[in-house]
Amino acid sequence: MDITKFVELSLGSWRSQRSAHHLAFRHFEEVTSNIDIIALKESDKEVIDLCQLYKIDPALAAHPFRMSWEGETDWDEKEEPFEGTTILVPIPDPDNPKVGRLLRDMGYAETIPSVGQYQITEDGTFVLTTAYDRAMAEEKIWFINPNFRLRVSLIKTSQGSGVVTASFSSETRVLDPKS
Amino acid sequence: MDITKFVELSLGSWRSQRSAHHLAFRHFEEVTSNIDIIALKESDKEVIDLCQLYKIDPALAAHPFRMSWEGETDWDEKEEPFEGTTILVPIPDPDNPKVGRLLRDMGYAETIPSVGQYQITEDGTFVLTTAYDRAMAEEKIWFINPNFRLRVSLIKTSQGSGVVTASFSSETRVLDPKS
Repeated sequence: MDITKFVELSLGSWRSQRSAHHLAFRHFEEVTSNIDIIALKESDKEVIDLCQLYKIDPALAAHPFRMSWEGETDWDEKEEPFEGTTILVPIPDPDNPKVGRLLRDMGYAETIPSVGQYQITEDGTFVLTTAYDRAMAEEKIWFINPNFRLRVSLIKTSQGSGVVTASFSSETRVLDPKS
Repeated sequence: MDITKFVELSLGSWRSQRSAHHLAFRHFEEVTSNIDIIALKESDKEVIDLCQLYKIDPALAAHPFRMSWEGETDWDEKEEPFEGTTILVPIPDPDNPKVGRLLRDMGYAETIPSVGQYQITEDGTFVLTTAYDRAMAEEKIWFINPNFRLRVSLIKTSQGSGVVTASFSSETRVLDPKS
């Protein structure tokens, strides 16, 4: 598994079930969503703009993609619809194809641009660590088969010691998005 | 990380939040439980009996333990209390300390004795695969810190192709079980 294979496997439409454990008050949040992941070109203006925001040579970008989602959460006792979209640009380390940076135009823990560090472990898990001003996010994504993947996300305090929220997504590929 | 370290870290009392995703009907199940893990001795009669059930030399057993739990699930729209206990006996491979078998006197997917294959990955994740008559179970457990661990469990069809249930537990150590 490398970033090329990982992005290629991720492209498509996914139906997601996500459970968030808000640990301090032992709360369960249930989220269902549909996720679309489409390839972008390294030459797309939005990709080049994001690289320039981080003062990174756009020639280093590999396999940029756009992720969009829409869904519902039962947070706050009512079904709240939500939607969003973000651009993600991997910048592989030229010396090690298993690690790199991931640029994002909107972060997960805070809605500002972010840059995370990724690595792909021996067993094919994509591990992403992102430091924000007031939090740290750690995410693991792995494929059980080409049509089913799992994602575990942690939001930690900025020192990285305490885990605030642990969440788990099971994502099933929608083979015919029209259905 | 090896089996010795893994079992030692696991000993104690844990407060667990578990979410199960029943994929076919996109159902969320929420489970809260308290888990106690205590060390057994290799010389305990129940450990020796379990080894003999599988015709394994009890001298090969290392760090056997007992796991007990009690909790509540919201399955079937009502809060159902449940409890259970099981003995687990690791049988490390004499040639490779990172892999081995795990004997259990009551399985997870079916309530009969089971024997699973475990391995500990490069990044310290304990991975257990157990084949049952009509299902396969795959479980990953890893520590975020000594007082917080995560567990992802999959129940697959016996051919291993389809995932039926994906579940996620976040487990926080109870530092003072009296509180």
